[in-house]
Parts: sequence; C-alpha cells; structure tokens
Amino acid sequence: MTTTEHRPVTGTDPRTGLDLPPEVVESTDDHVHDVVGAAADAAPALAALDRAGRARVLVALADALEAARAPIVEIADTETALGDTRLNGELTRTAFQLRFFADVVTDGGYLEATIDHAGPTPMGPRPDLRRMLVPIGPVAVFGASNFPLAFSVPGGDTASALAAGNPVVVKGHGSHPGTSRLVHEVLTGALQAAGLRRGTLGLVFGRRAGQELVAHPAIRAVGFTGSLSGGRALLDIIDARPEPIPFYGELSSLNALVVTEAAARERAGEIGAGLVGSVTGSAGQLCTKPGFVLVPDGQAGDAVVAAAAAALGGASVVPLLNERIHRSYVDDTARLACAPGVRAVAAGDPADAGFTVAPLLVTARADDLPDEAFAEYFGPAAVVVRYAGPAELTAVLRRLPASLTATVHTGAGEPVLELVGVLAGTAGRLVFNGYPTGVAVSWAQHHGGPWPATNSLHTSVGATAIRRFLRPLTWQDAPADVLPDELRDVPAAGVPRRVDGSLVLPG
Amino acid sequence: MTTTEHRPVTGTDPRTGLDLPPEVVESTDDHVHDVVGAAADAAPALAALDRAGRARVLVALADALEAARAPIVEIADTETALGDTRLNGELTRTAFQLRFFADVVTDGGYLEATIDHAGPTPMGPRPDLRRMLVPIGPVAVFGASNFPLAFSVPGGDTASALAAGNPVVVKGHGSHPGTSRLVHEVLTGALQAAGLRRGTLGLVFGRRAGQELVAHPAIRAVGFTGSLSGGRALLDIIDARPEPIPFYGELSSLNALVVTEAAARERAGEIGAGLVGSVTGSAGQLCTKPGFVLVPDGQAGDAVVAAAAAALGGASVVPLLNERIHRSYVDDTARLACAPGVRAVAAGDPADAGFTVAPLLVTARADDLPDEAFAEYFGPAAVVVRYAGPAELTAVLRRLPASLTATVHTGAGEPVLELVGVLAGTAGRLVFNGYPTGVAVSWAQHHGGPWPATNSLHTSVGATAIRRFLRPLTWQDAPADVLPDELRDVPAAGVPRRVDGSLVLPG
Repeated sequence: MTTTEHRPVTGTDPRTGLDLPPEVVESTDDHVHDVVGAAADAAPALAALDRAGRARVLVALADALEAARAPIVEIADTETALGDTRLNGELTRTAFQLRFFADVVTDGGYLEATIDHAGPTPMGPRPDLRRMLVPIGPVAVFGASNFPLAFSVPGGDTASALAAGNPVVVKGHGSHPGTSRLVHEVLTGALQAAGLRRGTLGLVFGRRAGQELVAHPAIRAVGFTGSLSGGRALLDIIDARPEPIPFYGELSSLNALVVTEAAARERAGEIGAGLVGSVTGSAGQLCTKPGFVLVPDGQAGDAVVAAAAAALGGASVVPLLNERIHRSYVDDTARLACAPGVRAVAAGDPADAGFTVAPLLVTARADDLPDEAFAEYFGPAAVVVRYAGPAELTAVLRRLPASLTATVHTGAGEPVLELVGVLAGTAGRLVFNGYPTGVAVSWAQHHGGPWPATNSLHTSVGATAIRRFLRPLTWQDAPADVLPDELRDVPAAGVPRRVDGSLVLPG
Repeated sequence: MTTTEHRPVTGTDPRTGLDLPPEVVESTDDHVHDVVGAAADAAPALAALDRAGRARVLVALADALEAARAPIVEIADTETALGDTRLNGELTRTAFQLRFFADVVTDGGYLEATIDHAGPTPMGPRPDLRRMLVPIGPVAVFGASNFPLAFSVPGGDTASALAAGNPVVVKGHGSHPGTSRLVHEVLTGALQAAGLRRGTLGLVFGRRAGQELVAHPAIRAVGFTGSLSGGRALLDIIDARPEPIPFYGELSSLNALVVTEAAARERAGEIGAGLVGSVTGSAGQLCTKPGFVLVPDGQAGDAVVAAAAAALGGASVVPLLNERIHRSYVDDTARLACAPGVRAVAAGDPADAGFTVAPLLVTARADDLPDEAFAEYFGPAAVVVRYAGPAELTAVLRRLPASLTATVHTGAGEPVLELVGVLAGTAGRLVFNGYPTGVAVSWAQHHGGPWPATNSLHTSVGATAIRRFLRPLTWQDAPADVLPDELRDVPAAGVPRRVDGSLVLPG
C-alpha cells in the first residue's frame, strides 16, 4: 500500500476551535523515501566537518532562528495559542540550546576519546587501541504538540543529533504545521548558507509518514516526545525492523510532588500557590507538570489545599493545543472527578471559547485511591492525595509508575534521606523545595527516567542528550592518517582524553 | 504454566561426545522468582557501598577465582575441551577483568559526575543541578558456550554490572553447568566474606528459566552473548514486557578481513598463516573469527590462498563445544561447500572422535556469491572471496551485514582512507594489519557494532561496558546531606567532575 494523494494537514486556532488555512500536505511514501535518501546523502559532508565547523553551523542555526523571531512567534501563536511571552521565551531557549550544543561540540569531551598505547598484559601483548564516539547515522525526530519550537523541528533532539554529526528528518506535528514549515525553511536556508545540503534537515508530515520514517532502513535512531500510546506504537514498528534501532521516547510522567508535614506547617500558602502555578502554566501541557501531589492529613495539610484552591480561582489558563487534547482532558477529568473516593476541591472558570478548559484540583485519601488517580491528565489538573504519615506516604509512592521527576517540599533542616531513597528509584530528576516544570538546558540536566517516563538510560535535554546519537568505534594499530584528529598523538584541536587510563585535559 | 519437575542439565564431553554426570537441574519458575527476589533484596547493600568498598569486592572476587584455579580449569576442560592453556589464560583474563573494573570504579570517571551551580540564563535563573549515574537495578546475564569463564558466570557482563552496583542473576549455559556451579560457589563465598548477601550473584539453569528471567519485573537490564536467533527470541520477550528494559546482545558477526593487492604482494605467506591461526584458534568458536576474507585476484592473491591452504593442513583444532554446534557446523559447511560458485580449497583432518571437525577454507568470486557466503559459520571455517579491484571490493563490503570487527591488511604506506571509511560504517572495531580475534580488556576497547553485531551503542568488553548498567539521576537544589559523595561540594574521595561546564580532575 502506498499513499499517493496529497491530503492537507490543517492546523486549528485553539482560541476559536476553527480550522486554519492548510499550510502543508501529508507526505506520500515516495516523498518520505526521497527525504530520507537526501538525509543519507547529506551525511558524509556533515560528518566530515571538524568540531569547530559543526559548532559554527549550530550557532548559525541559532542566529537564523532569532533573525526570524517575529514571524515564527506570530504563526506559532496562531497555531498554539501559547501566547507571545511563552513563545518568545521558547524561541530564546531553542536558540540557546543550539548554541549550548555548539559549546558541547567545541569542548569535545562528549567524544570520550580514549587511547591505550600498545603494552604488556598478563594475557600477552595488547595492541594500540583508540576509541571514540562517531555519528550513528540519519535520525528521525518527532515533534511534540506542546513545544512548537523547543521540542519540534529545531528542538533538543534535532540540536543534539546535528551536533553529533547526523542528518535529521523531522516528522512535523499536525498541531503546528505552519510553524514547522517556516522554521524548517529558516533552518535549511542557514544550513545551505553554511555549505551543507538541504537534506541535512528534512521534514515530513502525517501519521503514516511517521510510520514509514521509523521503518526506513537508512534511519539509525528515533527521538520522540509524546504520548505513551504513540510511543509504544512506534516502538512496535521498530521492534519489527530487521535491524532494531534505538528509540528515545519521552512518554508519560505523573511527577509526584510530596509535601512533608513540616513543610506544610512552615509554608502552606507559598506551596499551595506555587503548586497551582506549576500545574496551570502553559495550561498544564508540560511533561513535567506535578500531577500527583501528596499532602499530609490534618490542619497544616488542609492549609496547603486551601491555598491551592484559592490560587486556582485566580489562575489564568491558555486554551489547550488541539481538539484531541481538549476532548481527552474534558472526558478524562470528568471521569476522575466522579471516581470513588475523589472529591473536586477547586475548579477554575469554565470553558468559554475554542479549546479553553477549567483547571481542576481533586483530592483523595491515600488508602482509598481509584485507578483514575494514577493516570496522567494532560492539561491543568492535579490529584492531591492526603496521607496519614511516612508509612502511608511510602506505600503510595511505591505504587506509582516511574516519572521524569519527583519533588519534595521539606521543612527547614528536616531529614529526608529515606524519602529521597524511595523517590530516587522511580524518577530521573529529584527536585527539592521547588517545582519540576522548567527544565534548564545545561550540563547536569537529566530529562528522563525509568519507563514509562523514557527508555531509562538517556536524557532528551542537556549536554548528554548527544550521547543518544553516537556509537563507539575503536581503531586497533591504525596508521595515523586514518585516525580522526581527536585520536592522533597530538591533536590539532584540544580535547579531553583518557590516555593509558588517565584523564588528560587539553593544553 | 509452571515447571515443577527437576530436570537435570547434562553437560557433554566434547572429546567423546558422551554425557557427563548431571551437575545441576533446570530451575523451576518458583526458583527463578526466588533468585531474582534475593537479587533485589541484595541491591541496597551493594548500592550503599562506596567506590572503595565496591572496588575491594571486585578484587576479592578476582582473588577467589585465582585461588580456585586448578579445580575450575579441570572441570571447564572436561566440559569444553578447550584445553588447559586456553582455560588458564581465560581464567587469568577473567580475574584481570574484575580487577580492571575495580580500577574503573576507583577512578570514578564513569559516573559522569556533573555540577551546574545556580545562576542566570537568558531564560531566567537556573537552579543548582547535580547529575551522576546510578545503578540501574538487578541485571540478567546469559552465559555463552564458548567462554566458560570470560563470558559466563564471572565474565564481562557480570563484572561490569557488579562494578556499577547491581546484583546479577546469571542464566548458566548448558554446555558447562558444572563449571558454572563451581564458579558461582567460589564467587558467592567471596561476596559473603565481603559482607554482601549471597543473592548478590544468582544462578539459574534451563531455557525456560532464561525466559522467565528476562520477563521478571525486577530485572532492569539484560546482557546476552550468543546466537542471533537466541538473542532475537529474548528481545521478543522483552518487547512484550509492560516496561521494556535495555537488551545488550552480542549476536552475530562475519568480521570481514580485507587483504589489499599491495599487502598480498608483500606478505602473502605471513597473512595466509596468520589468517588460519585466527580462524582455527579455539576451533573458530569466537565471535571475532574472521569468517569473510577478501583476497585480490591474481598471483599475489593466489599466494595468500596457497599459504592459508598449507597452514590449514598443519592446524591443530580442538573439538567443538557441544552437539548442537557440531551438527550445525557439519551440516552448514557441507551446504556451503556445495553452494554454486563455491570451491573448497583446503580442509584439515576429518573428524575422529566426539565433536571434532575438520577446518575448512572455501573460495568464491566476488561477482558470483551465493547467500551461503554471507552466513556466519561458528567453527573453524572461512570464506575467501576473490575480488578484481577496489570497485568490486567496495561493492561486496556494502552487501555485508554489520560486524563486531573489520580488518584490513595493507602494504607499507598504502593509502586506505577510502576503504577504511567503507569499513567504519559497518563495524565496531577496525583492525589494521592484524587479526580480530583477541579482544583486550582495556579503556579504549570496543566490542560491539551496529546490529546484528550488537545493539550498536555499547560495548560488552572494556571500561565503558559499565555504562550499560547505569542510569542518570539529577538532583535539583538538593541539601548536601542527601547528595552522594561524588556530588558534594568537596567530595571525600577524589573523582573527575564537570563543574559549571569545565572538566576538573581530582587532587
């Protein structure tokens, strides 16, 4: 079966719920094949760039994005209703991330360059061995609905894959096709100006195109941000490939937030308000939204809930991103509110137009939680679970699926080592006395976690995201002229290396 | 369905083909569950050891193995017929590997400890972020038939998983059950003497036990060395888990070895003899055996083939490991020798007893290769492919599946950059003017490669094998007392770290 029609991909204005003029069409199988072929053809030139050259390309992409800031933010706001402030911030973050990966590439430590000179061992002589990481090959990236820039055509997956030296083919998200097309034009223009081929960054549209993409033999890895069911469907296609490839999915996350008795006593008002800000920002459409909040029984806990209820009344919430998310939120939160043992404690203004919804907080008792309490609600909703003491708290935490984050609010000087031990087992990032939304792009960031948060081993945000798109290669007794610069006895460009077992920093 | 019988696992003497007395029984489902449960229970004490403590445990395991060298080598030789020299060398290597991972743990660089202090960014203030790698949880390891020590109960997978801080459950190989049981006793004795639980290293037997093991919810990663079909079967079980886990399979490898025209002219005799040594050592039962050899047409190439044929006549070959390998070798090489375009150029002495077989070299033309030429023959056989020139050579290489290694023999000063580029795309280790058998345990080793060699991203031999059994965890704004030593402002034990983007070496 092949698709040969050109069906339009139509975005929707979340503020009205009305269709926008079609910007693009779904990619046919032939088009996907051509785009992946162009990516494969673009690979040698990209891989041949030295680190300085690749860093310059990443900076050029950042510059190009910022030069086109106004039209990009305008169309992104039309398609997502996330608002100018958030979208300008997201563009700044996206450009920052490209420049950050230029720094990572310039540093070179990510290559893990390692040299073992020939020498004796108890098992006989060892040859000269030199290892470093090399690009894995063309990468498929799936844009997410909730970050039209930072997790879409130019997001962290694309930036880290390009930084690693791989061409990228993006499956653009149907909620912001115009933004995707414009940003793609801006970036491919910058790539061409830098002397690289247009095919270095490809773009396809449509569900079937995404399936064709991950099944394509030339694609060597997949980055995906989206739903657990969507990720699982792609994983099933990958599992059926003759050659399995790495799948980096960022899928589902409850992001437990624990308020201890001491914290509730000390800062009930501050925590209640901060929690609602974190739940309702970007209409709660963040993978790190704290959706499962543990608050102690008793007066201090009551005060946290009361402060949250009050804050929710005043919260300003943007519309949800698309019709599917809107429908799911409305249906699923209605079911949640009616589940046995669940009580709605606060709801914001009801919907007025388009995909606008009311934010929602519900409570339930830790010893009487229905299945609905353990689900992720993509949107401005959270379940507040009241617990009697440390034993009940631990018991509930052990029932939770793994998440990207786990947060604990503690009293001043309160010992929480045991609690942290429980949380550490099921999350990729532990947040203390703060909120998990907001994922800084930096060297020490980890945005991942045991399944179903992600595939456990790697991050999609931060410096080490680049590791996902590299594979090791070792040269044994190689003549110097076939070695990459980083593995020669005296490299032209400084790079941290491990030589005969010891780390050596550049000059 | 559960198994409740206690079926014996019976090894065989490869020198006679006769069954050995049963040493162990197949593990019931209940037993597998108990062993995995004991591993999970052993995890906290192992993870709580500091790096110095864990290094001491690894050294104690090495010492214990060497203290029991004589009985271990004796039973291993009975079960595998690999011979005293090889098995003593393998034990030395296995102990060396445990001590090597003690060095890796002591160094601490593998933890990727990273600290970003709080500070401003273009997107607003960034919190304090501290990241390092933590143990992934109980690991399942599948012993291989061909290395009863180095890729079995105490092999690279076990050593690296324990070094990372994870309990291990080994599925012992049915070809050396007695060796597995004895080594397991020796190692668990050393673990208990070091104050750890027996469950830190578990052992189960039987095909069904292996399946139960990878399906068990408490198992967090799988290391496997064996056949492509066996690995694929385990991967299918993993794919069906509610929570997929990383599968590190070392599966299948042709290990192309290219002799250039110049190399053939310069050292035909040396290459022919060296090749046969590499093909027939350990009866060719090595994942890195060069099974696909490319030799130029013409006189120089003829001389390589003649030298190999002569060497094969004098090669001494140990029996194959078990009945299944023996039968596959006999049947598959018979089919190979009869395939269209294939000509047997040399065969060693025919079988005389037990699982002994004759080594085999066949030739074929690069422009007329049957499917049989592209298969892996586990045993002392290789296909010599004659090629007309660089274009035909490249065309054949592009048809090969990925391998653990690729080797090139070159003339003095001969430029081979283009050829190396082709080989690099489909192998994990590039060997120059040598032989791929022999995989040194060192910092720069890589024993992996694109599928079907392995799962592409990680090694099973060398320092970075430890990365497979670790996951990242980031602490945000954490109080010092909940941080691991490696992430405190002033760590007690020196460790390389990246602080605010710059690598900092200890002391």
